[in-house]
Amino acid sequence: MKILCLNGPNLNRLGKREPGIYGSETLSEVENRLRQLAGGNGADLEFYQSNHEGALVDRIQEAAGDGTDGIIFNPAAYTHTSVALRDAIADAGLPTIEVHISNIHKREAFRHHSYLAPVCTGQIAGMGTYGYDLAMLALLRMGKGE
Amino acid sequence: MKILCLNGPNLNRLGKREPGIYGSETLSEVENRLRQLAGGNGADLEFYQSNHEGALVDRIQEAAGDGTDGIIFNPAAYTHTSVALRDAIADAGLPTIEVHISNIHKREAFRHHSYLAPVCTGQIAGMGTYGYDLAMLALLRMGKGE
Amino acid sequence: MKILCLNGPNLNRLGKREPGIYGSETLSEVENRLRQLAGGNGADLEFYQSNHEGALVDRIQEAAGDGTDGIIFNPAAYTHTSVALRDAIADAGLPTIEVHISNIHKREAFRHHSYLAPVCTGQIAGMGTYGYDLAMLALLRMGKGE
Amino acid sequence: MKILCLNGPNLNRLGKREPGIYGSETLSEVENRLRQLAGGNGADLEFYQSNHEGALVDRIQEAAGDGTDGIIFNPAAYTHTSVALRDAIADAGLPTIEVHISNIHKREAFRHHSYLAPVCTGQIAGMGTYGYDLAMLALLRMGKGE
Amino acid sequence: MKILCLNGPNLNRLGKREPGIYGSETLSEVENRLRQLAGGNGADLEFYQSNHEGALVDRIQEAAGDGTDGIIFNPAAYTHTSVALRDAIADAGLPTIEVHISNIHKREAFRHHSYLAPVCTGQIAGMGTYGYDLAMLALLRMGKGE
Amino acid sequence: MKILCLNGPNLNRLGKREPGIYGSETLSEVENRLRQLAGGNGADLEFYQSNHEGALVDRIQEAAGDGTDGIIFNPAAYTHTSVALRDAIADAGLPTIEVHISNIHKREAFRHHSYLAPVCTGQIAGMGTYGYDLAMLALLRMGKGE
Amino acid sequence: MKILCLNGPNLNRLGKREPGIYGSETLSEVENRLRQLAGGNGADLEFYQSNHEGALVDRIQEAAGDGTDGIIFNPAAYTHTSVALRDAIADAGLPTIEVHISNIHKREAFRHHSYLAPVCTGQIAGMGTYGYDLAMLALLRMGKGE
Amino acid sequence: MKILCLNGPNLNRLGKREPGIYGSETLSEVENRLRQLAGGNGADLEFYQSNHEGALVDRIQEAAGDGTDGIIFNPAAYTHTSVALRDAIADAGLPTIEVHISNIHKREAFRHHSYLAPVCTGQIAGMGTYGYDLAMLALLRMGKGE
Amino acid sequence: MKILCLNGPNLNRLGKREPGIYGSETLSEVENRLRQLAGGNGADLEFYQSNHEGALVDRIQEAAGDGTDGIIFNPAAYTHTSVALRDAIADAGLPTIEVHISNIHKREAFRHHSYLAPVCTGQIAGMGTYGYDLAMLALLRMGKGE
Amino acid sequence: MKILCLNGPNLNRLGKREPGIYGSETLSEVENRLRQLAGGNGADLEFYQSNHEGALVDRIQEAAGDGTDGIIFNPAAYTHTSVALRDAIADAGLPTIEVHISNIHKREAFRHHSYLAPVCTGQIAGMGTYGYDLAMLALLRMGKGE
Amino acid sequence: MKILCLNGPNLNRLGKREPGIYGSETLSEVENRLRQLAGGNGADLEFYQSNHEGALVDRIQEAAGDGTDGIIFNPAAYTHTSVALRDAIADAGLPTIEVHISNIHKREAFRHHSYLAPVCTGQIAGMGTYGYDLAMLALLRMGKGE
Amino acid sequence: MKILCLNGPNLNRLGKREPGIYGSETLSEVENRLRQLAGGNGADLEFYQSNHEGALVDRIQEAAGDGTDGIIFNPAAYTHTSVALRDAIADAGLPTIEVHISNIHKREAFRHHSYLAPVCTGQIAGMGTYGYDLAMLALLRMGKGE
Repeated sequence: MKILCLNGPNLNRLGKREPGIYGSETLSEVENRLRQLAGGNGADLEFYQSNHEGALVDRIQEAAGDGTDGIIFNPAAYTHTSVALRDAIADAGLPTIEVHISNIHKREAFRHHSYLAPVCTGQIAGMGTYGYDLAMLALLRMGKGE
Repeated sequence: MKILCLNGPNLNRLGKREPGIYGSETLSEVENRLRQLAGGNGADLEFYQSNHEGALVDRIQEAAGDGTDGIIFNPAAYTHTSVALRDAIADAGLPTIEVHISNIHKREAFRHHSYLAPVCTGQIAGMGTYGYDLAMLALLRMGKGE
Repeated sequence: MKILCLNGPNLNRLGKREPGIYGSETLSEVENRLRQLAGGNGADLEFYQSNHEGALVDRIQEAAGDGTDGIIFNPAAYTHTSVALRDAIADAGLPTIEVHISNIHKREAFRHHSYLAPVCTGQIAGMGTYGYDLAMLALLRMGKGE
Repeated sequence: MKILCLNGPNLNRLGKREPGIYGSETLSEVENRLRQLAGGNGADLEFYQSNHEGALVDRIQEAAGDGTDGIIFNPAAYTHTSVALRDAIADAGLPTIEVHISNIHKREAFRHHSYLAPVCTGQIAGMGTYGYDLAMLALLRMGKGE
Repeated sequence: MKILCLNGPNLNRLGKREPGIYGSETLSEVENRLRQLAGGNGADLEFYQSNHEGALVDRIQEAAGDGTDGIIFNPAAYTHTSVALRDAIADAGLPTIEVHISNIHKREAFRHHSYLAPVCTGQIAGMGTYGYDLAMLALLRMGKGE
Repeated sequence: MKILCLNGPNLNRLGKREPGIYGSETLSEVENRLRQLAGGNGADLEFYQSNHEGALVDRIQEAAGDGTDGIIFNPAAYTHTSVALRDAIADAGLPTIEVHISNIHKREAFRHHSYLAPVCTGQIAGMGTYGYDLAMLALLRMGKGE
Repeated sequence: MKILCLNGPNLNRLGKREPGIYGSETLSEVENRLRQLAGGNGADLEFYQSNHEGALVDRIQEAAGDGTDGIIFNPAAYTHTSVALRDAIADAGLPTIEVHISNIHKREAFRHHSYLAPVCTGQIAGMGTYGYDLAMLALLRMGKGE
Repeated sequence: MKILCLNGPNLNRLGKREPGIYGSETLSEVENRLRQLAGGNGADLEFYQSNHEGALVDRIQEAAGDGTDGIIFNPAAYTHTSVALRDAIADAGLPTIEVHISNIHKREAFRHHSYLAPVCTGQIAGMGTYGYDLAMLALLRMGKGE
Repeated sequence: MKILCLNGPNLNRLGKREPGIYGSETLSEVENRLRQLAGGNGADLEFYQSNHEGALVDRIQEAAGDGTDGIIFNPAAYTHTSVALRDAIADAGLPTIEVHISNIHKREAFRHHSYLAPVCTGQIAGMGTYGYDLAMLALLRMGKGE
Repeated sequence: MKILCLNGPNLNRLGKREPGIYGSETLSEVENRLRQLAGGNGADLEFYQSNHEGALVDRIQEAAGDGTDGIIFNPAAYTHTSVALRDAIADAGLPTIEVHISNIHKREAFRHHSYLAPVCTGQIAGMGTYGYDLAMLALLRMGKGE
Repeated sequence: MKILCLNGPNLNRLGKREPGIYGSETLSEVENRLRQLAGGNGADLEFYQSNHEGALVDRIQEAAGDGTDGIIFNPAAYTHTSVALRDAIADAGLPTIEVHISNIHKREAFRHHSYLAPVCTGQIAGMGTYGYDLAMLALLRMGKGE
Repeated sequence: MKILCLNGPNLNRLGKREPGIYGSETLSEVENRLRQLAGGNGADLEFYQSNHEGALVDRIQEAAGDGTDGIIFNPAAYTHTSVALRDAIADAGLPTIEVHISNIHKREAFRHHSYLAPVCTGQIAGMGTYGYDLAMLALLRMGKGE
């Protein structure tokens, strides 16, 4: 099983700032933890982060053609503004789980709306970086056909 | 560790209808699976369903005083209409994870808004009944202080 | 044929107040008249009123399993606020006719919207208590397969 | 007793298209059935259809002066756009029952609002063409002073 | 003179939580203070709290028939979501004063709207639990015909 | 000088109904009074009423080509729903004064908006039928180049 | 008959600026013309302008007690922002005609709404300063009981 | 192949006014050019213009039964206000291309919404009268099954 | 203890008009009654009314510096339109109780919103002029540190 | 004549997915067909696709300086979210025709609004990939000065 | 060069309260600093503050006629509520720079809208009292014709 | 002191088009003038422009780590659509001044809202390119601790 973990703008700064809110864990540490979880379940992990909406669209299109089985996607700010990513996800036709580290429903009103949610399998929000693990567990389980 | 799994209106009908959408699993089967997961992690599970908003408020208040460590809450239809449940959750002060079996963001517009989300720890939607398992994993992890 | 006539909050007060508006007929008198109409057409009538949203949900679920063939439902105030009743009606899958004694479109703006209407067969409003009779005639006709 | 059954735009096409939705009954067949129901109750039926908003206004004004006792009105598309018809109905001062064959509350959002409902006696929607019969029964009953 | 003090959901928790905001006074203490105030003015106090919307509707209907002269009503969360309580108050026809302990106008936007205010005599908000006393003073004065 | 007085739907019923509100004056009487006022100022009056939006559009187009110098227009219900009349007025390029007998700003919210006002010279509302006289005085004055 | 002509903020600048739009006539010239029109009809004219909302409220209250028979009111910018003037007009209970020199319906959206219109007798807009004359003619006619 | 070119209100005035905006071409000239284009492709052209919404509905219904293969429809002002035309187009079930001479998206906000667009095949706007030619080319191509 | 009772526009007319609604009590009578209540509790009363928003701002600023301990404020029409008064109250930092004689929630929609409520201690509405007394009782109690 | 055909995000996937909706034609095939059409009319075609908003802005700026005579632009998802592309088109000052393959007015509400339409010459939607051909025909015709 | 610095309601309290937010600098100190800056650039400074909307309108009108070359305007609360000031600024026709000490875009939603901004030259917000200096620098530069 | 001047999409075209509106000054000329101003105050200037949202996010992140002391940011079109830039600015934690050359409040409604303003220190709009100079003066002053 091949899983892509995709990360949107500013997530490369994770752990560098506001550790009181986001924790002190960096994105690399999240990547390592997920890689272990994937490996322990016989799955491969691709991990990608970009601040560029277009690059994320490119990467989703690539996944649509390279045998990827599912996507864990934290679109960060593009959650609220990108129809291009919505169309890319819908077009790729892969199981996709939207992850938000913070509880977006507690924050500014414009963060309550997600252009992506209606074309994803589901959404996990507010679980901290552990939300990535939960998303992977869900994809692995789908992979097993449960 | 003591976990309460709370279920709102019409969830007692789970598995009896529209298995194409919700699966053929009944709420009892979900309860059993969660009980096993809890037991395997040294935790106790309380399981409660009601069609009555007031009864759900009562049950949350009870949890606030009986040593419950966390709540898995699928408020179903009350998600979108109940301020009373919001106030009860806020008042109880317990880690609470909101679970929706279906992807509420794909459905009618009035299902996109949750009165509860801003006072819960986080939200898991669209994962089928496996969302309950993910919520319990998250609570168990919090219980271990990770 | 078995028909359930379901009545929401404050309808137990019918006839006791504002007879200029709602007429002096009590809910019992409506029940009796409907019972005669049902009997004359070889049908059984169940009649239920409650001020409790949850009790109404319970009663609809019961109807879904006890051979009820159709529901006449005056949800009163819950028309405008209850997603739980909407889900119960949708789940029961029975022909359901929404009845309002007064013309809700002439009243406060919040009474113009019904959460239930989209999941009911149809809606009759503004015909006074005779709307119940019309709803029964329609259910009886459906029962005859016309 | 003299009853006018008034039909708005595109209803002359009834039965000719989408019989799966609207049934295969034509407007003439509805007219015949209503004529029988009226006759059997000692009432006269006038029946009129037009695609022209102004012609419908003219016809309502005529009814206001020719001894008509009540109107069964299916305004079709003009339900949602015509203030002129609203003013004509309000001015005529006759008992008027708004009928919709389909359940307008299940359809596009713009069909949920009726300019006419607040000036009619009541509204019957979603009962198929049997809604016309129910409306006539209600007018006949009013005519008997019940 | 007979006065009913009615309390909505979660008010049974008063004093048990967030004393910095709501004070450390419990609902029983409020009840005792009001009972003294009533007694000192030759009035009887009925005191009732419920988390159930339906039970509150029941209680208002009971008051409409048992000689109650006025109602002090803190509907808490149901202020913002209950049309059933609005209809019950309107139907009871008793002087009713809506009380909110906190200043609801400083809080979340959905707390600024009250379904009940338009059918109550008046509203007192933000005075802490002393708002109950003020409401009783107002009812006592009305009772004296001033 | 040639002036067209144009009247929209239901104005042919003026004086026949609700004289307490609209006065007992008929549209013919208004026409006569205006004809006198026009004549006394050396102007010709054309007077037209229709319940048909299209007929009113036709009449405005005719005025655009027959030497009419100004229009007094009471569009009645079409005020609020007709873009076709707006386009006709804009296209005709004649001084046009919108007249409403009643004060439309005191009535239902949908009557506060006029599609025509932005393309007319001005609007007179709430002056009873005397608003027609005022409109003619204004057109006559424009005709004199004052 | 005693008529008050009241003018809101910035109208003292009339004629001093943008003569292409508002004409080169000053407010004094308008006053003189109105004074002649009043005199010729045996009426007295009071004329007042202020940039102060409170001063305009004061002046309306004065009119309510000094035998004024009607008000011509160009509230200018306060049309769109002053509830205080609305309450003063409603309280004074005098026939009041709202005048706007320009066609407010052609301008910015916030100028389309008038707080005053619902409590005035009527509104004249877009007739230039001749709107004042029309308003006076209307008041004089009311004074004659026509 | 038989094509109907349908034109809404005020289009009969094309070329007579505002040639700077709409060009000096008249509707007859457009008709002639389209007739040539149709003829050159072995197709017949029907051409119809009316200011009456009802007449346009009538004409569409006629097309539904007379072997018409496609409609070029410039609904002009009725684009924004007519549900009756929407229903007629939907009912006729013919390929229909909505044409607007001007770019409606550059104009007043109410012109941005089309009741017809969702039931038409497509929309061409802002191409001047050449939009009619493009629409015909598209219909001809559909006719050839390309 | 020093209390300022501040009154907004048109309240100087109290008792002079619409005694059926507002009672026949004048503002002077209210002042006298409050003065007695204050005196009986060892407090001083300042009483001020103005129709000028700016004068009310000035008076609040004065209170901020002259040892005033609390404000009873009936802002009348300025409740709904004045940010300047909101800023003045917020800046003064004194306990302030907003009073409305009528139940503003029963009236026009624009009266349901108060710019001042979020910066006041609380709000009392619908109690007639007795609301002033209740507000003073509340301030006196705060003064006693209860 | 030099024409640029510009394509937004996900259009590189054309023909690879959902052929039932979008047809099985690839973007290369569209390019080839357009190139032939251009060549046959003595015009040059530039063809560009990118998933990057910034790259599309860059390309438009390039066109503004390299002698391009017109743009055929299918902005896809950026239609609804990009002010940057709007500004680039407005700044380039070239005839630009917006093309959408599907009928965007039949789809989700957010697809009904185009940031680009008001700065383009016109819009063609719902014609499938033939919309590109129509757009080129229109540009070629403009190039010939017709 | 003659510059008017105009200050709206509650700015006379600057420095007296909430120094943590607004700094401890008083309005007099701002005035002195600006006077020095003006003097050093050969310009005269007029400085005016009022809590009265009308007085600010008066002052702007005065500036329109006394040779003032530009206005620095901190309208404070009137920013959000005054059309009268907007009209006065538009009428005066002088370069006017709107200044806000705090960042109004971080505050309550009603502070995000300025009635004045569209008629001013520009807006400076969030720079503390140094915003006044920046505004003066901009006016001085305009005065030099740069 | 190190200052970054960041410029969003289409600003590289400054001076090349619409000099009547934006002036004939190019972005390079602005850069040179700012570089002189910075140099004269002992500060270093970094200057960057991109049409790519992601590249601007990258550049802000770089500034967060390279000792930059403040940012002058003209986000151009991204002002209204980019949450990613908002998050980057908030995350960088540097004093940031938003600059707009034109008065965005005079332009289309969608330009009145800035996603960036609430996370910037302040905003300068409508001052032409001199707004950059003012922003730098403000940053230099902050650098001096004034």
